[in-house]
This record gives sequence, structure tokens and C-alpha cells, in this order.
Amino acid sequence: MNFQMILNILGLVMTFEGAFLMLPCMTALIYWEQEGFAYLGVAILCLIIGRILNLKKASSKSIYAKEGFAIVALSWILLSIFGALPFVISGDIPSYIDALFEIISGITTTGASILSDVEQLSHTSLLWRSFSHWFGGMGVLVFIMSIMPLTKGRNIHLMRAESPGPSVEKLFPKVKHTALFLYSAYLILTVIQIILLVLGNVSVFESINIAFATAGTGGFSIRNSGFADYSPYVQYVTSIFMILFGVNFNVYFLLIIKRFKEALTFEELRHYLLIIAIAVLAITWNIRHLFPTLEESFRHALFQLSSLMTTTGFASTDFDLWPALSKNILLLIMFIGACAGSTGGGIKVSRIALLFKGIRMELIRSCHPNSVHTIKYNQNIVSRDLMRSVYAFIGVYIIIFCSSQLLLSLNGYDFTTNFTAVAATLNNIGPGLEKVGPTCNFGFFSVFSKLVLMFDMLAGRLELFPILLVFSPHFWVGDKHFIHKR
Amino acid sequence: MNFQMILNILGLVMTFEGAFLMLPCMTALIYWEQEGFAYLGVAILCLIIGRILNLKKASSKSIYAKEGFAIVALSWILLSIFGALPFVISGDIPSYIDALFEIISGITTTGASILSDVEQLSHTSLLWRSFSHWFGGMGVLVFIMSIMPLTKGRNIHLMRAESPGPSVEKLFPKVKHTALFLYSAYLILTVIQIILLVLGNVSVFESINIAFATAGTGGFSIRNSGFADYSPYVQYVTSIFMILFGVNFNVYFLLIIKRFKEALTFEELRHYLLIIAIAVLAITWNIRHLFPTLEESFRHALFQLSSLMTTTGFASTDFDLWPALSKNILLLIMFIGACAGSTGGGIKVSRIALLFKGIRMELIRSCHPNSVHTIKYNQNIVSRDLMRSVYAFIGVYIIIFCSSQLLLSLNGYDFTTNFTAVAATLNNIGPGLEKVGPTCNFGFFSVFSKLVLMFDMLAGRLELFPILLVFSPHFWVGDKHFIHKR
Repeated sequence: MNFQMILNILGLVMTFEGAFLMLPCMTALIYWEQEGFAYLGVAILCLIIGRILNLKKASSKSIYAKEGFAIVALSWILLSIFGALPFVISGDIPSYIDALFEIISGITTTGASILSDVEQLSHTSLLWRSFSHWFGGMGVLVFIMSIMPLTKGRNIHLMRAESPGPSVEKLFPKVKHTALFLYSAYLILTVIQIILLVLGNVSVFESINIAFATAGTGGFSIRNSGFADYSPYVQYVTSIFMILFGVNFNVYFLLIIKRFKEALTFEELRHYLLIIAIAVLAITWNIRHLFPTLEESFRHALFQLSSLMTTTGFASTDFDLWPALSKNILLLIMFIGACAGSTGGGIKVSRIALLFKGIRMELIRSCHPNSVHTIKYNQNIVSRDLMRSVYAFIGVYIIIFCSSQLLLSLNGYDFTTNFTAVAATLNNIGPGLEKVGPTCNFGFFSVFSKLVLMFDMLAGRLELFPILLVFSPHFWVGDKHFIHKR
Repeated sequence: MNFQMILNILGLVMTFEGAFLMLPCMTALIYWEQEGFAYLGVAILCLIIGRILNLKKASSKSIYAKEGFAIVALSWILLSIFGALPFVISGDIPSYIDALFEIISGITTTGASILSDVEQLSHTSLLWRSFSHWFGGMGVLVFIMSIMPLTKGRNIHLMRAESPGPSVEKLFPKVKHTALFLYSAYLILTVIQIILLVLGNVSVFESINIAFATAGTGGFSIRNSGFADYSPYVQYVTSIFMILFGVNFNVYFLLIIKRFKEALTFEELRHYLLIIAIAVLAITWNIRHLFPTLEESFRHALFQLSSLMTTTGFASTDFDLWPALSKNILLLIMFIGACAGSTGGGIKVSRIALLFKGIRMELIRSCHPNSVHTIKYNQNIVSRDLMRSVYAFIGVYIIIFCSSQLLLSLNGYDFTTNFTAVAATLNNIGPGLEKVGPTCNFGFFSVFSKLVLMFDMLAGRLELFPILLVFSPHFWVGDKHFIHKR
């Protein structure tokens, strides 16, 4: 394990967190809010720590998969620990545990809040919350890599550990260029959404906040009423952008290099849009009696579905009051999640598709034990290793889910609350049903439960393995337990 | 596909169902109940159909894996269709759908009932219900194979398709001897339980019914109060026998051939007992305030845990009133289920253990991509094929679970009811929580929901693949779709 290299990169992450904190500082200047001093102080602290961690440079810049996991997991934990400080110091969220919950919910793009009255926050803190969605969505290390080289040619390990999906495709030979493309597309889409929202008579500040939360598929709202009070235009625009940010960014790459046919026949994209279409129609039909017009039913069905499928978590209405069928569709959708290579969470469309394909193959094989059959996805042959990692992911997912559910039940709340609280955090969505429904918040949970849910948010965003590994003692004791050839 | 051979074996299964129906006929003679005529009539019908299906003998007695699945799935469907008739004809359960639900619940050893007042049934029907647990528990085809050869040396395909667990071990070189051993051990344990219950002042009729339901890990009770009114002695005896019937019968084989050390170090047995011990202690502690003495808390915890872990489904108390933690532990246990090669349902301890081992390997491999690592279970090396089939099983399980849950939600009942109704039927347990709690029944569901739950019970008992395959059109259209070498 190249510890010095890990420390160096963590230092860089701290430096960038310091830089990120400048954005709320600027907001404080504009609105002349004294909360800005808290942000400035923490920014300086981050820069100092970043400097200290980089005083001694690693002799070897090489890292392997293992270091990749360690760096990503520890970066996110550090980002959270320091990112929570300004909330406490500014007095906006007095309890540190609550502040930590809020910032983890932010950077993991979950959007579950402990605040019952979000409108009392300063503009500065509101922007920090929303901005955490934005840089958390596409990833901090990916951001850093788009600007500077981190290691000696092994950046792919970091990218793999931080980016969502069963596999990471290098769009360009160099990781730096891939990262740069991803962030450029991300930024452009965000800016377009801000413009469209401003055109819809939303204030600039509010538009920026909404766009940050949409882009990262986060879901923090700056109004207590969530999305209920916005105009149909704003709800439609946001629905469409939620869907756009849930698309595998490889599709945008194919579009830019003018391989339109490949982009449109991209299997994951077709599955994703098909699921959305079927689910929206089913819910529209199921809730048609709840709204005066069919348009309104359709709009809320589309909004809620895009919101939960992309794991954003905005709510345009209290879907906890919808009929059982709609609630069940939404719940199922929460687990499927968005596309791999997007900013969305959940298990991901591609993993579900691979699961179905793997099962189909296994059914054929059970009848014809000697049959030969390969699995293809997105025009590529799926390797055995990838297939096995998909299965293992789902296995780990189930284990973390059940364990969290069991630990939450110590609180004594009902089954639906516990179940959907875990589903909403592990899939990085935000709201669940019952006590954690769209009109409620997570503030009532015990400190222990909050810690469990924070773990789930981080595990969900980093796709389980990095967080699970850094919390297992075996990971740190060296490689002597394993027979391996490198 | 060797259709003639399939028909011949189905004919044999019908003949045996005719023979099985003699037991309720005898009960009718003893209690002088006219319901017996219904049972006699159906028995004769089954014998006639059995004869007709065997008029033309198959020219080739060879069957392959595919025929194995078809035979097992169709046998169980036929057994259910005809097994339900006497309930309707005798007037004990007037609705055919309800009768079908009851008998499928019986032979799949689920124990979920649509009856609100079971005590009004005739002795004849009560015994048929309980007896269906008994022959369903160890398997009808396994029973037939223990008596006569079915096919030309390919009986293992039938055994594999009907017996629970990820793999079937041939204890003897011949399948017939393995089947004979299984049924002998099964019968001996059942008889011992009957004797112990009679010694506890339970009537012979009641003892036989309880023992049948315990042996098959079924759970039908002949009292409306379930197990609440039985003496502590009877509750303890039943707890222990539930645990014994949930053990992998390979352990009994090892004990009989005096390989005690191997029996006691059998990995699945150790995991099974460890889970029971930890869960019983946790629940005893969690419910200690609900009962006057610690003994009583312990007794109910032990009873409930053994009942749900082995997927029997007896209830000594209304555990739906227990605290959230206990209910969650019970729910988790329902999914784990009993050991492979036992009469219990659920995912099975061995599959869960293999899942954990597979995940552990995958975590190691994610850090050390070139590491070499094999998985061992019960002193055997686990093949890649077996591992993949375990993953696929869990995948299919999740898909069937979610689909059923979605279809049930059309009824509009609450999430916990739907979730636990599916859990209770797919795992062949019986009671769930809320509206399907231990003091309730499944009678209130719509016909459509009952059909879904019947599918789940059959799918659960036959471990998903056979039932899924016979319901898929591809299965029947021949092999031209698959590239395969046999």
C-alpha cells in the first residue's frame, strides 16, 4: 500500500474542497451574510491541511486498485467531515451529527434532509448544500483529474472506484481527457438548465440551486414545499433534465462524435427510456382520479418517476398518498436507479439488464448443460469477470440493505419507514414512504440510526466496494492473507 | 423432448396420488364421516387417469435435465389440481380457488390458509391437509423413486429438480437407495415425534397431524388458536423437531454411517445452529418485558424462530405484536430458510453462505485482480457453475419477489401486508405480518392475488427454475434457439 501517495492525493482533495468553499463565500458577499466567515474559515483550514499533507511527496507515484479504493473512500469521508463544519460554525445546523448527515446527503446526491424548515437557512448555506450535489454527482476525483494528472498513468483505478456503473469506459486514451469531457458535458447541460429556468421566471439564485440539485441528481430543495409550488413549465423542464442527467454520458459522447445511430441504439438508453415510459403510463392511469385533469396526473407521474428513477428525490406532490400500485412502482424504480456512467444512483439499469441476461443464460444452461452462450450488452461481449462482479454487487447490496434495516429497527419504527429509509439512502434518493415520506424529514432518527444511514449514503454513492473495504480491518493489514500474483 | 415418457411418469404420479388419498379415506372410516366418499371418488379418478396415461409406454426411457424440470413442475401442478377436488366435493371448502390455494399451500409445505375457522373441517379433510405437508415435504417423485425405478438411470435429473438446495449429493451410487434412505429417516423422525406428542397427552389424531405438519415444515394447524394453547412440553418438543427437520439430511446419513466428526463439523449445520442460537438470544432479550417469566420469553422466541427459520409457520403467540427488532429478525430469518436437503424452504442456509463466500472472494479480487482463490463449502470445492447457479437463483428470486409484490399491490393493501404475504408464500412459510399475521388468514385476497401467491408457493417449493421454465413458451418450442452440443 502506497500510503504516502494516498496522503498526497487526500491533500489535493482537501485543497480542492477549500476551493469549492469559495463559491458559498462569494454568495455570502453578494447577500452580505455573515455566515460567509464560517465558510471562509473552513476553506482556509482545508487549504492548510491540504498543504501539510503534501509537504512530503511520495517517492513512487504508482497506485493499484487497492489504493484506488482507499483514496476514493477516504476522500469522500474527509470531504464530509470538513464540509459539515461551516453548517455548525455558522449556526445554520447547530448539531454536528445533523450537519454531517446533511453534507453526506449532499455530496452523495441523496437529498435526504434533517431540516424541517429549510427556508430559515442562509443563502450561503443553501448554495453550499446544492453545490455539494453538483461536485458529488460527477465526482471530486474525476474533477481533479480533469484539471491535473494525479498519478503515474494509473488514474483509471481512481475513476473506476468513483464513477457509477459496473464498468468504466475510457472514451479517450487518456483518463484526463475522459474526465474533461464528462465535466464539460455536465457543465453545459447545467448551464442550459439554469437559462431555461430563468426564462421560466425563476430567480437566478433559485435556478442555480435547482440546476445543481438536478444535475447531481441530488434533490435538496430550497423551499419547504419542495417542487409543489413551481409552475408546470418549471416542473416539465426539471423532469426532462432529471432524465437527461440520468443518461449514461457515453451517449452524449457518441452524439458529439456524430455516431448518432450508435447513440440511439445504445442498449442501456433504450431500457432506461422504456422503463420510464411504461411506468409513467401505469402511474398516470393509476392516479387519474386524484387530479382534476389528465395533464396534471401525467405531469406528476412524469415528475415523480423521473425524480425517483434518476434518484434525484424532488417531490411535486405527496406521493405517499398515492394508491398502493403507484407507490410500489415508485419503490421498485428506486432500486433500479439511473444509467451507469450518469450522476444517478441505485443499482443501475445496466446491472439489472445484465442480471436478466445472466439469468436467461442460466435457465438455458440448466436445460442444456453443455450449451455455449455469450452475453452481449451495448454491443460488447460481457466477460465472466464483469458478470461475476455484477452478481457480487447485488449480493453485497442485499447484505448491506438487510443489515441496515435490522439496525434501524432498533428504533422501533414501522417496517415501511425503516425499509424505505434504507432504500432512499442506499440508492441516494432522499424521500421514502411513511415517516420519511416526501413531506417529512430524517431529523427524528436517533444518532445511531443517522450514522447507519450516513454509511448507506456513502456506500450507495461509491457503489459499495470502496466503503466496505476501508471499513474492513483485513484491507489494511497487508496482502499476506491472499495467495496472489500481481 | 420425450413427451411420452413425461406422460408415463405423470400417470404414475396420479396413481400415487390415488394411493395417498386412501389415508383420508381410512380416517373417514374411523370417524364415520361421509366426507370420505368425496376422497374415495377422487382417488378412483386419479387411479383411472394414471392408468390411461400409462396405456402407451414410451419407446425410450431416457430423460434429460429438461424433461426432469417438466416432469417435476407438471407433477406438482397435477397433484394440486386433483388434490383440491375432495375439499370442494365434500363441501369443506366450497370455492375451488380457495381449495386449490389450500392444497398448494399444503403440498408446498407453506401452511398459509384461506380458512378463518379450521375447526369446522372434518377429520378427513384435516388429515388430508396435514398429510399433503408430509409427502410434499420430502417430495412425491422422491417417494416414488424410493419404491420403483422411474427412468433408465437418469433419475438424478428428477431428484435434482424436486429436492431443495443448490446441489444434490448422491449418498448412495443409486438414486433409488438415496431416496429410500431419505424417506426412511423422515418416517422414523416423524414416528418418534408422534410418540413424544402422545406422551405429552395429545390425542393420537392430533399428534399425527402435528407431526405431519412439522416433518414437512408445513405449518397447518388443526386448531384456530394455532400453537398458543398447547402445553410448554408440546411447544418444546415441536420446536426441537422443527429444527431437526430443517437440518440437511446428509447429516443424518453421516451419523448413521458413524462419521460423527464429519457430521458435527458439517458447515451448513454449524451455520444453521449458530443463526438460530444468536437470533433466539436476541429475540428473548427484546421481548423479555412481554412475558411474565424469562422461560416463557425464551420458549416463544425459540418456537417462533424455529418455526420461521425452518419455514414451518406454526405460531405460539401473535408475533405481529412484538417489537420492531424482533419482527425484523423473524423477517430476515424467513428469507434465509432452512438447510439444503431438508424439508424446509426459503433461500437456504447453504446458498446464503455461498453468497457470502462469493462476495468475500470478489472483494479480494477487486483489490488483487490476478489473485487465485477457491471457495470451499462442506469440505468440497465449489465449482464456478455451482456458484453461478447460486447467483442466478438469487437473481430469479428477487425478480419473482418484486413482480409478485407489484401484482399484489393492485389490491391496494398496505406495503407490509403485500411484502410479507409474498415472503411467506415464496419461502413456503405461511404467516406474515399485518393483514396476513399469525392470527389472520389469506382468505381476503382477490382471486387474482391468490393465483399469484399460488404461483409463488409452487415456485418456492420447487426452487424457481422448474416452474419458471414450464411457464415460458420457449421451453416447449424445441431447442433450435440454442447453440448447444449435447
